[in-house]
Amino acid sequence: MTIGTAPPPLRLRVVQDGPEAAATVLKRTGLSDLEVDPAVAARSAAVFDTPELRDLVSSVGLSPASAEEALSPEQFVERVVRLVRAAGDTALRLISERLDGAVPADLETSPAEIAAAYQQVDAQFVADLRLAADRIRRFHEHQRRPSWLDVDEGLGQIIRPLERVGIYAPLSTAAYPSSVLMAAIPARVAGVDEVMLSMPPRPDGRHQPEMVVAADIAGVDRLFKIGGAQAIAALAYGTESVPKVDKILGPGNIFVVLAKKRVFGDVDIDQLPGPTETLVVADDTAPADEVAADLLAQAEHDPLASAILITSSERLAAAVPSALAEQLGQLERAEIARESLERRGGIVVAASVERALALANEYAPEHLCLLVADAWSYLPAIKHAGGVFLGRYSPEAAGDYVAGPSHIMPTAATARFSSPLSVDDFLKITSVIALSASQLVELGPAAARLARAEGLTAHAAAVERRLH
Amino acid sequence: MTIGTAPPPLRLRVVQDGPEAAATVLKRTGLSDLEVDPAVAARSAAVFDTPELRDLVSSVGLSPASAEEALSPEQFVERVVRLVRAAGDTALRLISERLDGAVPADLETSPAEIAAAYQQVDAQFVADLRLAADRIRRFHEHQRRPSWLDVDEGLGQIIRPLERVGIYAPLSTAAYPSSVLMAAIPARVAGVDEVMLSMPPRPDGRHQPEMVVAADIAGVDRLFKIGGAQAIAALAYGTESVPKVDKILGPGNIFVVLAKKRVFGDVDIDQLPGPTETLVVADDTAPADEVAADLLAQAEHDPLASAILITSSERLAAAVPSALAEQLGQLERAEIARESLERRGGIVVAASVERALALANEYAPEHLCLLVADAWSYLPAIKHAGGVFLGRYSPEAAGDYVAGPSHIMPTAATARFSSPLSVDDFLKITSVIALSASQLVELGPAAARLARAEGLTAHAAAVERRLH
Repeated sequence: MTIGTAPPPLRLRVVQDGPEAAATVLKRTGLSDLEVDPAVAARSAAVFDTPELRDLVSSVGLSPASAEEALSPEQFVERVVRLVRAAGDTALRLISERLDGAVPADLETSPAEIAAAYQQVDAQFVADLRLAADRIRRFHEHQRRPSWLDVDEGLGQIIRPLERVGIYAPLSTAAYPSSVLMAAIPARVAGVDEVMLSMPPRPDGRHQPEMVVAADIAGVDRLFKIGGAQAIAALAYGTESVPKVDKILGPGNIFVVLAKKRVFGDVDIDQLPGPTETLVVADDTAPADEVAADLLAQAEHDPLASAILITSSERLAAAVPSALAEQLGQLERAEIARESLERRGGIVVAASVERALALANEYAPEHLCLLVADAWSYLPAIKHAGGVFLGRYSPEAAGDYVAGPSHIMPTAATARFSSPLSVDDFLKITSVIALSASQLVELGPAAARLARAEGLTAHAAAVERRLH
Repeated sequence: MTIGTAPPPLRLRVVQDGPEAAATVLKRTGLSDLEVDPAVAARSAAVFDTPELRDLVSSVGLSPASAEEALSPEQFVERVVRLVRAAGDTALRLISERLDGAVPADLETSPAEIAAAYQQVDAQFVADLRLAADRIRRFHEHQRRPSWLDVDEGLGQIIRPLERVGIYAPLSTAAYPSSVLMAAIPARVAGVDEVMLSMPPRPDGRHQPEMVVAADIAGVDRLFKIGGAQAIAALAYGTESVPKVDKILGPGNIFVVLAKKRVFGDVDIDQLPGPTETLVVADDTAPADEVAADLLAQAEHDPLASAILITSSERLAAAVPSALAEQLGQLERAEIARESLERRGGIVVAASVERALALANEYAPEHLCLLVADAWSYLPAIKHAGGVFLGRYSPEAAGDYVAGPSHIMPTAATARFSSPLSVDDFLKITSVIALSASQLVELGPAAARLARAEGLTAHAAAVERRLH
């Protein structure tokens, strides 16, 4: 910003509860409606336009698209996945080279690089990460679930950790060491044997030292320098350098998300994340400057992030825009926050806190912040939210780092049916059935009759053979 | 079979543990390698070749493929999903008419039809279903999980049931009322508000009375007469007749599976099921006729089902093929079972029970049956299986109906990372963060420093504003 030039005024939508609010501020975009920048799509076929990649593309039975052709994001991802699955490291390197430029000689971070990373960050940062890691660990230890066996009934559930998981960490407008803790520590608490992390490297072929230190503190076993859809394909099917995992977790751009969806079934995945979002519900007791600060903390993530206020207070609705404009000027990422607020944010005035919460339940936000008097009393009214932040001493920004729950939460209204990343993501169950002879005598005849009713005579025979 | 003509001999693979076994009997096909009958694919474009459907296809921006064109299964499903999403019941009816012939006037089963269904089944069948339902309910009640709140720590997890789920039940070579219980009862135990079921109707526009009675006993609220990918699309996005659900569960053919994968993200789904499979591990104490009966109970499901024996006993490996051949003659579905055994089944001879279990862990079967001495003692060695059936009085066929655990279990080696259908499938979590002023004073500075390290100054400011 040139000295002496005032920033343009903030164009923020402020609307009354009703059809206009539903059609603007509170409008939802589904995950399957995510769009790719047409300029990026137009360049996507050119990625495969080298002699080596043209040969590989033919060898997996795909037609070598001409460099000018625009592949849809799904076609691009299909191509990457099939190449990496068929040609392993060779494909991984050729594709990464085209997308990122140079590819490091060794795709894995070495112990020497990890040791060096600690030298490049300051001691306070390490101490803060350790504090956060400790809180995250304690919260997730609450979630451990025991196996159970009822020997008399001959029934039970064996609950076991997954053997090997792969976490993806993107490198977008910033690197987030906190996200490494939030994904890897629950895996460690669950008891996963091997936790791997993959991230795109910097142009110098290394990772940010902050990310390396976070991975080490979180207990990550192996750290790879691969990004994008090709990283997801490598984790899903394995290559010479990257072992195949059982589950892939973590956020990424649309190509990463589509690649996760593509490989789902062959491996498990966690969620299909969309842009991050916060919905603040505030009444007349909330200070406008704190509401504005919380909205900005969301908006600074990404121009596609959503920061929305629903308030029962006309005073607050009037005061927040100017508080936002004022605080914007103090932010490093002011332009991103401004674009987010103008494109995807806004204020809705509702008749009451109850009505605001009804709208919030319909929106099903990733983060729901209650800046209202007696916030605890509204907890039972909250049906759909990834995380709920009660009261002014629980800013979502604290939850992003040190509160304890994982900050990887369901976006795009998927809080209706999905959950924050947790220990559950790393467990799987085997049902145990061990009937005694007398139980089979008691239950077997009904099983055999039901089998015959379904036309399955071999089922009936397998039971009856034991009854004689 | 003509009287006097002996059936052809059973051509069953019997191999020693080693590379040949790995390449034949124990070879795995991934879910993303599922194939469609080329004849079905060739006809798929013709489905949309009516004046009304051609218009609809154009209206959603797709090119109206000529009737001769073969759509890939993914393209077929994409087309169905987009049409139903855009045109609701109209698309649903037009597509169902082309695929199934007549479409019932009312897409929902009426209370009168439910009452009539009870008159068409016998009382013993109803009693057997109620016994099964009761056992399934009791097993799943073990799995209820309470919310927790630690008010001093200001942290917790609110665990809530999903609001509305849709279960799909296929109508393949048989109808399976038991599968209705196995999917719907865990939903009811979890506390889901509304449980809906959709199945393709019979040519007379009704459902099998056995399925209707099972749905009623399981506590299904609404029962729809829609099949295929169009049913999945209707449940995912809602139509005039079908309300949108939060999660879709249950097995189906490849089009149903691909449709579930397509809508995943906009709604949740359970698993991507492949053909069913049983792996029997038996030692020299196992009676050959019972082993054979268990393999046949699996093989009769589907020509693509897998029934495999791994045994440490050469005697058993020699005796089971003739026991299979003998029992095959007594089955109604002998031809299906024969095809399954010859194409997808087999016997592997391993050096020991321990080695057999190592192979079983690698295979990660849906059903693992241990017909060995002291079966319980091997339980800790089992790492990957949907369900484990211990000892001769726990035939998998009993587990299919009355043992209690849901018989909807992970196939195609997904037992490495996924679980049998359970109460967990119907729950979701909201994290609660409610720090006190003194906690924020203690934790806030670390949060603010970590935020600044990530370049997120608005995050830091949102915390610091509360510290002053």
